[in-house]
Order: sequence, then structure tokens, then C-alpha cells
Amino acid sequence: MMPKKKLEGLIAATVTPMTPDGQINLPVIAQYVDYLVSEQNVKNIFVNGTTGEGLSLSIQERKQLAEEWMLQGKDKLDHVIVHVGALSLLESQELARHAAAIGASGIAVIAPSFFKPANKDELLGFLQKVASEAPTVPFYYYHIPALTGVKIRVEELLDGIREQIPTFQGVKFSDTDLLDFAQCINKNEREQFVFLYGVDEQLLSALAIGANGAVGSTYNYLGRQTNLMLQAFAKPDLALARKYQFLLGEFLSSVIKLGFGVAQTKAVMTFVSGIPMGPPRLPLLSASEEFIAKAKAKLESIVWPDSD
Amino acid sequence: MMPKKKLEGLIAATVTPMTPDGQINLPVIAQYVDYLVSEQNVKNIFVNGTTGEGLSLSIQERKQLAEEWMLQGKDKLDHVIVHVGALSLLESQELARHAAAIGASGIAVIAPSFFKPANKDELLGFLQKVASEAPTVPFYYYHIPALTGVKIRVEELLDGIREQIPTFQGVKFSDTDLLDFAQCINKNEREQFVFLYGVDEQLLSALAIGANGAVGSTYNYLGRQTNLMLQAFAKPDLALARKYQFLLGEFLSSVIKLGFGVAQTKAVMTFVSGIPMGPPRLPLLSASEEFIAKAKAKLESIVWPDSD
Amino acid sequence: MMPKKKLEGLIAATVTPMTPDGQINLPVIAQYVDYLVSEQNVKNIFVNGTTGEGLSLSIQERKQLAEEWMLQGKDKLDHVIVHVGALSLLESQELARHAAAIGASGIAVIAPSFFKPANKDELLGFLQKVASEAPTVPFYYYHIPALTGVKIRVEELLDGIREQIPTFQGVKFSDTDLLDFAQCINKNEREQFVFLYGVDEQLLSALAIGANGAVGSTYNYLGRQTNLMLQAFAKPDLALARKYQFLLGEFLSSVIKLGFGVAQTKAVMTFVSGIPMGPPRLPLLSASEEFIAKAKAKLESIVWPDSD
Amino acid sequence: MMPKKKLEGLIAATVTPMTPDGQINLPVIAQYVDYLVSEQNVKNIFVNGTTGEGLSLSIQERKQLAEEWMLQGKDKLDHVIVHVGALSLLESQELARHAAAIGASGIAVIAPSFFKPANKDELLGFLQKVASEAPTVPFYYYHIPALTGVKIRVEELLDGIREQIPTFQGVKFSDTDLLDFAQCINKNEREQFVFLYGVDEQLLSALAIGANGAVGSTYNYLGRQTNLMLQAFAKPDLALARKYQFLLGEFLSSVIKLGFGVAQTKAVMTFVSGIPMGPPRLPLLSASEEFIAKAKAKLESIVWPDSD
Repeated sequence: MMPKKKLEGLIAATVTPMTPDGQINLPVIAQYVDYLVSEQNVKNIFVNGTTGEGLSLSIQERKQLAEEWMLQGKDKLDHVIVHVGALSLLESQELARHAAAIGASGIAVIAPSFFKPANKDELLGFLQKVASEAPTVPFYYYHIPALTGVKIRVEELLDGIREQIPTFQGVKFSDTDLLDFAQCINKNEREQFVFLYGVDEQLLSALAIGANGAVGSTYNYLGRQTNLMLQAFAKPDLALARKYQFLLGEFLSSVIKLGFGVAQTKAVMTFVSGIPMGPPRLPLLSASEEFIAKAKAKLESIVWPDSD
Repeated sequence: MMPKKKLEGLIAATVTPMTPDGQINLPVIAQYVDYLVSEQNVKNIFVNGTTGEGLSLSIQERKQLAEEWMLQGKDKLDHVIVHVGALSLLESQELARHAAAIGASGIAVIAPSFFKPANKDELLGFLQKVASEAPTVPFYYYHIPALTGVKIRVEELLDGIREQIPTFQGVKFSDTDLLDFAQCINKNEREQFVFLYGVDEQLLSALAIGANGAVGSTYNYLGRQTNLMLQAFAKPDLALARKYQFLLGEFLSSVIKLGFGVAQTKAVMTFVSGIPMGPPRLPLLSASEEFIAKAKAKLESIVWPDSD
Repeated sequence: MMPKKKLEGLIAATVTPMTPDGQINLPVIAQYVDYLVSEQNVKNIFVNGTTGEGLSLSIQERKQLAEEWMLQGKDKLDHVIVHVGALSLLESQELARHAAAIGASGIAVIAPSFFKPANKDELLGFLQKVASEAPTVPFYYYHIPALTGVKIRVEELLDGIREQIPTFQGVKFSDTDLLDFAQCINKNEREQFVFLYGVDEQLLSALAIGANGAVGSTYNYLGRQTNLMLQAFAKPDLALARKYQFLLGEFLSSVIKLGFGVAQTKAVMTFVSGIPMGPPRLPLLSASEEFIAKAKAKLESIVWPDSD
Repeated sequence: MMPKKKLEGLIAATVTPMTPDGQINLPVIAQYVDYLVSEQNVKNIFVNGTTGEGLSLSIQERKQLAEEWMLQGKDKLDHVIVHVGALSLLESQELARHAAAIGASGIAVIAPSFFKPANKDELLGFLQKVASEAPTVPFYYYHIPALTGVKIRVEELLDGIREQIPTFQGVKFSDTDLLDFAQCINKNEREQFVFLYGVDEQLLSALAIGANGAVGSTYNYLGRQTNLMLQAFAKPDLALARKYQFLLGEFLSSVIKLGFGVAQTKAVMTFVSGIPMGPPRLPLLSASEEFIAKAKAKLESIVWPDSD
């Protein structure tokens, strides 16, 4: 199933709700969908990615979660991209087949990061073997070298990629190397691909050079404001867009000093949305009460341009 | 089952034999066991580790492989340590239970490397939850910071570890930080733990400060010579021990320049042992013919002290 | 002397012309000034920086070079910023006094990179001791963590900096962390400081969040085109600005694959300007003939929007 | 002047005494020489290196200091190796000529670390141009990749080095890559070179593979005990040698946790020797009182094997 609407704008990298004892909390997903759509104006999601602790879940859990998002998102969400990357090619292939079977709008694959592909051939070989298991599903490469250690330039990867991966549709680009990102866009003349930026705190800089959209964890709880930034940029009202970007940056800069990762994102999403996202899974430990108090105070202290 | 013999000396980090089309090749294991015992004088093995591409296999494959090694090694091998580490705690726990059920001599766990434990609490929390699923099986921590990016010092980890992990038995220490390694040995006064060194090319340096044994991939095909190094060191005949170490280093130094990883180790083991170890799994690609020719020539050019 | 014109727009990080036998080639400076002004429309320069091999020169050479630029630039250039950073505080102080004596428009200091300041206090202590030797000269911090390894966030450095360094005027920010850069601009509400971006290939992204100008090596030979990008951005005509940025990126992306550093920049500047910039100094070696041929062909193949 | 005694055993990497206001404190050197010889049994020194803050001093200061060590060490010290490395080739050459003029036993050069040599040619080109300015003085390469970022393997550098640098005499090897170190020793069959190990906390491991001696900062204040370790190793009494190594490691492991660098080494040397070594120079700041108290307590708590 190819979705009718083009994938653009904001895509929330969803957290994975868990019960207090660490099981995935499927019943919360329905509420999560409604919250994203009605409160954040976000209708695209990225499931089982980094923010979703996808690689910390079992294969079975990843399937269940993807199914639940598809079920609850039906008629409400525009795009459900399921991340199917894994260290084991076999498991990644199994997840790709499953995503196809449940009708996901797209699949995404992160570079395997234990044995790191040393060159384009090794990386593309792996991606191709996954993509071909879901031959009708749009395929996205998930580029996040700071986490994977795989620094193969995306520009290089694009050369001839459609011959290897006919379903190739775009990239979730989570890196600060905007030369590489710009060259991807430069090469995308016929606009057959989409380049989604994944470093939320510098999205405006990526928009300036032509990003098609953005995938990130902050759009779970600051999607509404970031949508207003996108609107300001489109006018273009750069001064206004900058204000939104600076305020998001101020929040992130502040929590980064306290230690900010997926565990902390779950805590922030819990207090902003009121939906209990639960603890992270080991090796992550829950955000401290001190973190939560400070993050909450900081977020509440921010005066957004649209708030008057 | 606690093995009667103390774990010491050489432990071969086994490769995982695969068929030409990339399936695990179980029938070859029997031959592999006999080769290690009779040709290399190596009676301890480490299964499903880095060299064994453990993290590239599916859970099912890892179980099958461990079972086959246990079956074929019965009455022939002294110790079969099964590596059960995984990015997902649930999968690691499942593998730990399985290893216990099949009677493995020990289990080992690598630090999860996608979400990297940021401190001792996060790492120990993860290890403890795995170890407790196999409450009668000796537990080894597998420390390899160059691959995992987890640099928590082992010396620090040891403090009070038996309270958290009663089955804790030792460490596979694959790093060049010999200050940390020495302090581990320094703390092991009652010799309740074993510290196994995992950087083959500098084993002699680790022996000098008290390593109890060694786990490594080269002991698959240079176990006999390294056993002679151990004997020379025990005398002590440092000059002779050095010769063995230098010659192993000369081989490794030579192949490292050509690009040397698990794929290449499989190729070397194939031409030395005559047992077809097959290709690696993606994202690794097979060693080139050029590599194999050069590695073979180099290895054959080495004149070992015992060869006359 | 405080310059009358505000420092903004493009600042060329000048190369240091050398004779074939490796001495600095002072007589060429006059021609270099005229070239920048008339051919590149660039009237601000940054002397003895990274591109100028400042840290590879002797103290005496750095003084002579700064003097010559001041002499030849008089009445022609708007701003001459002299980089006075050094590993030795004493030498940096000596250079700061000299720059003040010859009337430099500003001084800049890179973080010392052998002993790396471990925190804000150590870095600020060093910078303050240099700045205070030139108490009437605007002071710029030169932030380039990829080269120095000093990753102290500039945002943090700014807190209370005017109390420590009354002459503090701004930052040459050569890094891809645009969260940090954005927060600097966010804090500069009264616009008392200038933030100059130093990663040429992503200048447009920095402009989008409010960069005041740019310092870089490419403005030596692509200053005219980059000035047109600045004009397009100011309109704003983002589509046109993007074209310039993409074409600069295409050139840089192409030469980076060939190996691109200061030696290669000198070669490019030589063939573009016709001024013999000479070889670099060891430990750098001259660009190869092959590099020069390919870089020349690439640059000449680019069709700039204004060329028709 | 070629020294009659072969360079071996311990070489103290001396700190640079400074007055409270940060000037070099030459009058203290005489006392420092006597202390090393009589209290630490150390008769070889390495001047103006990392521990000596050589790169933080001005050229003039480095010359004065080298002269004073030569003057005071006359008839008392066996070897005075003067480090003459600098970022600027011209300055390094000037220092090499000076060291030759004052009769230094050897000169050493660290790899330039701002512009990092990218290959053997660039590194060797730089070293050769320095060595040739002191054509009768033994030349040592100072390998310390963790500080310089220059990771060219020493084994590779040795190939044909005497053709380029006829005065080449050996290496101060400050790295934990003992494969590289071992291959250096393996290649040194005719023993024309000396390989001095520079990671004090794992010296025993380097001795095991044939290190000729050691250069380090701890030999300033733990030279006597380390000499006893060398004696134990020579017997060989590995168990005793290990005790010394473990105790040195215990001290270092303890202070490393508190933050341990050159500033802290100066403080430790001050309280152990009673000679006022003064503060470090910026960007280093003095060790805290808390550090000094804890380091002193730790060092005094250690019971060395020879103390009864």
C-alpha cells in the first residue's frame, strides 16, 4: 500500500509505553494516537526507532507494537513508518515481512552497529537484503552515525541506489553534517526521494537547505510549536521561525546539561501529555525525580510566540 | 553443572560455520571439536561471541549452535562458555535460560552497545538481570570497549559484584588498558575469579601481570603454538615466550594491514584447518581471494621455534 | 583603534604565501589584497589562522606577516583580524601586544590544543591572559573543536564573559553544532557580539539562524559567489541562495574525496587567482599534480547562477 | 658528544619548576638533580617533554631550562635527553641546534599535533628536518598518539629510517598498543635502537616483551621502587615485580579517579620531594588542596615490599 499523501512535515519518533514492571503497554497506544493528532497536530509516526527503544525490544514485542499502532492509527494517521533494523539480518528481514503484512506506510533500517559496515558495499548489501523482503513498501535508510559509528556518507550511498533497492524512498538523516545533507537534496532534482531531518534542535538550518520534513522525539510534545515554525518558514518569516527554533533549543540545551536521553524523553512526554509512558528498559534507567522537576519547570517557563 | 576443571589456559573463540548460502552449518561442528582438541590442543571454547558472529545470528540459530557444541563437545571439551549477550534484555535472558538448560559451563555477556550503559549502575543492572536467569551457571562479563564503546572500568565493576551477581566468575578482558586489568588481578587476592585476556597479540604482556588464561580467535588455528608460549612463560623462559609472541604478532600485524576482521578469520581458519567455515553474514562480506593468498603465504613463511 | 564599520559579511581566512623553498613570501601580499578586494569583493581578512598555517610559523614570521597585511591593507581593507593563539601563553601574549601595536582591527585566539582546557575556567583563564595584553583591541574566540579537541560549549563560555574579557567581541564558530551556535545568537539580544560562522559548506544553514558573517578559506577564491548567496538570502530568495550553497558544496564534496586540507587550499588559490601561494610547510606536503588537475576541472565545470 | 653509557633503565620525565607567579624557577634545578640521583636512583632525564610542559614554554625558556639541566647534571647524570618538538618546524630546528650546542645526550621530537601528519611521509619529513639540524646527536621519536592524535604505527616508521635519519636511536613509546611495540623490538635484532616505554602503569608488561627502559613522570617520585621492580624482573622474580607494578597502579588508579595530569604530578612531586615545583602554566590550573590531601594519604598508605 502506497500512502496517498506525500510524506512531509513532522513525524513523531514515538516512545514505547511500558508498564511499571517493564512490559510494553499496548492499551495506551490508542490514547497516544489521539494525543498526537489532536494536541500536537502530528499525523505521521516512526515506530520502534531509537526513541522507541526498538533495539531493546524482542522481535515479538516489536511486531505487537507495530500492529497496535497500525490498528489504532487507521483513519487517523497519515503515515506509520516501522523501523525494522536489527543487528541480525534474519531478524530484520522477519520484521520487514511483518511490516509489509500489516500494511505499514514504510519501513526504515538503521545501519547495523556491532559489526559496522566498512564501506558502501557492505552497508548496501545489508539494506538491500532487508528491503527485498518487503518489495512493495517504501524503504528509508536511517542515518545516525553518532549512535551507530557508521559514517558512510549518504550522498555516496545514493549513487545508483534505486537499481539495488527499487523501493528506496528516502532518508531519516540524524546528523549535523549538513554538507552531506545538502548534497543529497542537490542530487534529488526530480524530487523522487524525501529527506527527513532528525536533529530537532537544528531543524530550521536543514529547512533552509531544503529538508522535506523532520523525524524526531520532540515532536511528541512540541509538535504544535514546531508546526508553527514550519509555517513561519514557509511564508517566509525567518525571524519568527527562529524564535521557535531558539526556544526549542533553549529547552534542549537546558535538559542536555542534566543528562538527556530516551529515558528522559519518556518522562517529559509523560508529564506533558499526561499519558503514562512508564520506565525505559535496561540498560536505561528511569529519569530522576530531580530531572523531571527541572525539565518541567524549564518547559513551563518558556513563552512561545503564539501563546498570547 | 559446575565443571570440575578450573577454567584456565586457552579458550578458542569459535567461528560460526556457514553454508555457502549463509545458513549455519551444524554438521561441521563435530569435526571442528576434534580439530581443536587434537590439532590445537585447545579444550575450552567460547561460543556465539564476536568471532562467532553471535549478534548477527537469530535467537533460534544461537540456541541450535550452542546445543550442537554441547553435544559434540561432551566428553571431549572441558569448558563450553556460551555468550548470551544481546541488545534486548529479554533475548539475553532467554538465551541465558537456554544455556543453563543445556548445561553450559558458563555464560558470558557483552555490554549492550546501542544504548550504552552510562555508568556502573546501568551496566550492572543489565548484567544482573541476565545472570539471575541462570542462577547456577558461572557468569563472565565480556569487556570489549573498542567494539561496544562502553568504557566503564572493570576494576570499578568488581566492587561488590558478588552481592549483585552471586554467580560472577570472571571477565573476558579484551582491551589494551593493562592498568585496569592489573588492578582486577590485584583485587583478586583470594583467587575466586578468573581473568581471561582477549587481545591475542599481547597475551604475553597480560601473563606477566597475572592473566589466568586467554580467550581469542587465533587459538582456533595457532592454539598449539600459543600453548607452547604458555609453557615457556611458566618455566619461565621469557626469551622463548617472546619468540612465539613476536611471530604471532608478525602474522597479525601483516594481515591487519590488509584489513582483518571476523570474515578474514573465517577464511584463515578454513585454509589452516581444512574445515569449510563458509562466508560471514552481512554486514560482513567474504575475505577476498587476494587476502587469502597473502595471509596463507605469510603464515606459511613463519618459522616457529618448535618446528625443527 | 576600533574600526568604524561593523564586522559582518565575508572574512577571508588567508593562506600564507611561501617561496618555493618554504620562506614566507611577503612581496606577494600587496597583490593578494588587491585580488581579494577587486576580484572577490572581500574586504575583511583573518590572518595567521588555521588556513594561514599560523601555528606552523615562528613568532617572528607571524609578526612580519601581520605587519605586511596591515601595511598593504591600509585604505583598502575594512578589517584585519590577527590570530594570536599559540600553545604557549607567553608567545600568545607577545603576539597580542604586537597586534595591538600595529593597529589590528581585532585579535582572535584558538583554544590551546596540546594541554586541552578541561573546563570553562581553564579556557577562560588562558583567553583572559591574552586579551588583557591588548586592552583596546576587540577580542574573538576561535572555536574549532574538530581540530583542537576542546569541546567546551560556546554558549557556556559566554556567561559573564565581558566581566572577564571587557574587549570580548565575538566568536569565529567553526563547528557543526548549530544548537550551540543558535543559543549564542539567542543570548546576543542586544547584539553586542558578532557570531561568525566558519564551516563554509553549511553557511546558509547558519545564516538561517542568524549568523552575522562568515570566516573561511573558500572566500579567498569563491568570495564573489558567496557574496551573491548572502544577497539572495537577504532578499530573501532562499531558492537562489541554496543554488550557490549547493554548488560550493558540490566542489568541496568533490575535493574532500581527494583529500582536502590547507595544502590543497593553497594550490586551489594559486590556480584560481594566479598568485603563487607556494608550498605549505611541513608537516604538510604540497598538493599533488593529480589533485590540482581534478580540482581545477571540477571548479571550471560548475555553472554558477550569475554566470549567464 | 655521544654518552659512553647505553641509555637504559629509568628516565625521569622532569617537571618544570615554576615560581608562584609562573616564571620558570631555575635555581631549583640543582636540588632537583641531587634528589633524583640520591633519593630515586635515577640518573637519566627527559627535559621539556609533556610532563615538563615543554609546549607551554617559550623558546627562550626551553633553552634556559635545558642549559640549566645540562649544567647541574654535569658529572651527576648519565643522560639528558632534550625534547625539541614544536608545532613550528622552524622553532623545533632552532631548539635542535641549541640542544646540540649545549651537548645534550639526545634529542626527542613529538609529532606535530595541530596539523597532524596524515602518513609516514609527512611525519618522517618533519622529523628528518629537525634531526638534520643536530647531525651528531642521537635522535628519538616521541610517540604519544593519545595526546597528539597521530596514530602512524611506529613499526611502519622504522622501515628504512636510518637512511632518512642517520642519528635515529630509538623511540619513547607512550601508548598501550603493545603489538606495535613488540614488532618494533622484533625488528631491532641487531639492537641498534632502544625502545623506551612511556606508560608507567604498565611497564612490567612492556618489559615482558623486551622494553629497553622507561621514560615517565612517576620516576620522579617512585623511581626507587620502580628500580626495584626492574631488579626483580631481571632475576626473574615475576611475583615480586608484579607487587611493585600493582602498587604503582593502585596509586595511579586512585589519583586518576580524582583527575590526574601534569598539574597534579607537580603537586605530588612537591610533597614527596619537598622541592617546590610551583604551579603549572595556563591552560592548566593548580591541583586542588583536596587532591593533594587525598593523593598524599593514598601514597603514604602503600606498603612497598622493600619497606620492612
